Amino acid sequence: MANYKLTIEYDGTRYHGWERKRNLDTIQGKIEDVLTRMTGETELNLIGAGRTDAGVHARGMVANVHLKTPIQPEELRSGLNRYLPEDIAIREVRQAADRFHARYNAAGKTYRYTCSLGKNVFQRRYVTRLEETPDVERMRRAAAFLMGQHDFRSFCGNPKMKKSTIRTIDRIDIERRGDLLTFTFHGDGFLQHMVRILVGTLIEVGCGRMEPEQMPDILAAQRRSEAGPTAPAGGLTLMSVDY
Amino acid sequence: MANYKLTIEYDGTRYHGWERKRNLDTIQGKIEDVLTRMTGETELNLIGAGRTDAGVHARGMVANVHLKTPIQPEELRSGLNRYLPEDIAIREVRQAADRFHARYNAAGKTYRYTCSLGKNVFQRRYVTRLEETPDVERMRRAAAFLMGQHDFRSFCGNPKMKKSTIRTIDRIDIERRGDLLTFTFHGDGFLQHMVRILVGTLIEVGCGRMEPEQMPDILAAQRRSEAGPTAPAGGLTLMSVDY
Repeated sequence: MANYKLTIEYDGTRYHGWERKRNLDTIQGKIEDVLTRMTGETELNLIGAGRTDAGVHARGMVANVHLKTPIQPEELRSGLNRYLPEDIAIREVRQAADRFHARYNAAGKTYRYTCSLGKNVFQRRYVTRLEETPDVERMRRAAAFLMGQHDFRSFCGNPKMKKSTIRTIDRIDIERRGDLLTFTFHGDGFLQHMVRILVGTLIEVGCGRMEPEQMPDILAAQRRSEAGPTAPAGGLTLMSVDY
Repeated sequence: MANYKLTIEYDGTRYHGWERKRNLDTIQGKIEDVLTRMTGETELNLIGAGRTDAGVHARGMVANVHLKTPIQPEELRSGLNRYLPEDIAIREVRQAADRFHARYNAAGKTYRYTCSLGKNVFQRRYVTRLEETPDVERMRRAAAFLMGQHDFRSFCGNPKMKKSTIRTIDRIDIERRGDLLTFTFHGDGFLQHMVRILVGTLIEVGCGRMEPEQMPDILAAQRRSEAGPTAPAGGLTLMSVDY
């Protein structure tokens, strides 16, 4: 019995998210199926650092799995890559301590949201096309209010969320390079749809439909309806997970 | 009547090449159809700098078209981008001299061929996956023999080619960065499949199945069968055209 830590990259376009769902293609489901095929083990549980939504991509998702079958990390990596489809790749496999848990031990995550201000032929599946050009300085002023520890209930897509909605964001970088506008978030954890609602709200500010100074009131309201729209899934990528 | 010069970007994956073909999706066909829709002109001829094969991409294809309808270049660009699908974009439109001809006046072209030595989730449509790792130094030695003016009949995919098969290549750069291997070619023109056969041959050399010193004999033979295989279309991109 050994515990393996996997670093995973995927194009989420054609998947119904990370989490295994009966009769639907999901990332967890695809990888577990290949692990079963490789080891014959049917009681597998691939534990992801988080559950990405349908259509969201990853460059550095982390997951762990306990296997009874003795197998070298490199053999596991190359076998998985051989049998997985072209839109899922295992970048790294390492043996981890038995107690390592990809979700409970995750200390921080970096997400990047990318918008394109014009047509982007080669990246079109990984960016959200904007028709307007948001003002970066206005968005940065709004972002400053969102940094730090807050109750982010207004930025949570799950209205029945019972657990704590308090999270800490210690980085929101907004950069424009040519026709690409990127939002990079780092924090200790993110609620369902939280990054996409943050981006949707920042874009409202950038386009003049909300004011940067409204952010404290939106946070304080603890009502989803106060924040901006949920930006589309395709522009979001989980970049890395810290342990 | 004005002549417009267009710079065009496309993901060739789902097209049957540049050249208009009845009942098939092609780049020329798509753009001409939108031009007809915008202007009502049915006798259009969009002249491309060259004809890319099915599955080949472009970042800087150049074409020209004479239009009777008076229209500003920027209006033409934004209208084309609005009606063209997401995998074709018009980067630039300029008014050109009446005599400007995108094919006859093309003085040089740059093509890039990209291979991936591992899985590449996000670029997978634009690279060719290699199972072996070719030796870059051996390929560079072979490339040196291919530089300059030669009769490239052995590297021509059209066995019935009646016109001259003499071309000059003044740049073949072979670079490895991480898992990506790129071949950049610049020359005064390229025969049908020429870049793909050059790459297929260089990879044979890189993997030890041919010797760099065989290149002069392959050129001299003027027989397609002496060169290596035709590398797949998806790894090839027309980068730019010089005038």
